[in-house]
Amino acid sequence: MTIKRLEKVYEGKAKILYATEDPSLMIQYFKDDASAFDGIKKGTIVDKGIINNEVSNCIYQYLEQKGVKTHFVEQLNDRETLVKRLDIIPVEVVLRNVAAGSLCKRLGIEEGKQFNPPILEFFYKNDDLHDPLINDCHAVIFGWANQEELDTLRKFGYSINDLMVEFFKERKIRLVDFKLEFGRHKGEIREKMDKDRFRFSMGSVEEKYREVYNLVCSNKE
Amino acid sequence: MTIKRLEKVYEGKAKILYATEDPSLMIQYFKDDASAFDGIKKGTIVDKGIINNEVSNCIYQYLEQKGVKTHFVEQLNDRETLVKRLDIIPVEVVLRNVAAGSLCKRLGIEEGKQFNPPILEFFYKNDDLHDPLINDCHAVIFGWANQEELDTLRKFGYSINDLMVEFFKERKIRLVDFKLEFGRHKGEIREKMDKDRFRFSMGSVEEKYREVYNLVCSNKE
Repeated sequence: MTIKRLEKVYEGKAKILYATEDPSLMIQYFKDDASAFDGIKKGTIVDKGIINNEVSNCIYQYLEQKGVKTHFVEQLNDRETLVKRLDIIPVEVVLRNVAAGSLCKRLGIEEGKQFNPPILEFFYKNDDLHDPLINDCHAVIFGWANQEELDTLRKFGYSINDLMVEFFKERKIRLVDFKLEFGRHKGEIREKMDKDRFRFSMGSVEEKYREVYNLVCSNKE
Repeated sequence: MTIKRLEKVYEGKAKILYATEDPSLMIQYFKDDASAFDGIKKGTIVDKGIINNEVSNCIYQYLEQKGVKTHFVEQLNDRETLVKRLDIIPVEVVLRNVAAGSLCKRLGIEEGKQFNPPILEFFYKNDDLHDPLINDCHAVIFGWANQEELDTLRKFGYSINDLMVEFFKERKIRLVDFKLEFGRHKGEIREKMDKDRFRFSMGSVEEKYREVYNLVCSNKE
């Protein structure tokens, strides 16, 4: 399948989205910019875009196999993937299996504490406001998502977390927390995310791009 | 009824609680310290304690008449009221009818926007952490309240808001937002609050202690 890349529709910290001739599809291009957690830590990692693309697609294929509807269509090359065009819901869903980062600061919780069941949080996707924590009431009243959609996000969030914990466990990686985004595609809610939204704990080793890649994609054909 | 004031059990920004000979009852004493919103604005208003006591008790009597269970038992004198001893639930419930204060900053909402239905928020009662916003998941997992209690807090919060909006409307006061606290008393959830937890809008006039007192308690016998 040859897909023509048309105009740039969006450029974010880690990726660029291009239109295609099919209005329901887009091309996602992963850049090498390394920016984590609200853009504070900045830098460039060589081949980061390639790894991000590969790792994200391994995860998508796994989730699709397990029945989760994602925006993934097919990988086009090293850095480009064909994805479904989504009408993004501005509510980010964070799943936490282990206490880390902002949660510890906000609520005075000790780093490393394990959660079972996991903690699920909704954040309002807004860079200027630094993605503030919200509750259902905020999302509904301000029109970011309706209650039925929030219930779906919550249900999908928990089941994707179960799948991802298992997926990484088999690869000797402990999934600390991750962020999910969802969008509407032809009336259906679909999941989108990328590798950078995961926080891992890999024993004494700090998370390294290539290492994650090797572990995650090693059983790929 | 003569009630003996025993040892001090708690001293906060606005009040002191004393034990009594009955372990299920306490005496609440209102001080003149004016401190609002996390203790940042500090000062002393003469007779503030008296007004706080009177206004709070008018509200309690109104709520009790309407079937809401509160910690109120009876007013003892100008500054002292006999109340039920509660095992405090560390989840504060905020009801917002109009956009103001921290909500506007957090979520980029314009001041003065009206909410119908009102916005309900849970905050973790913790001075060191500046009472952070939480969701149900945090409260349950960290053991601050169970799901059934949160559902009760939410239900009580909305109905107390309806009652209070009506109460203040009859007195020409617009209720902007207020904070409720709840506690367990012999297995039952009861409400507690004080006048300082309300934010009013009274036309062009800034809220004044004595004015609120006159308006709220004017139809008292």
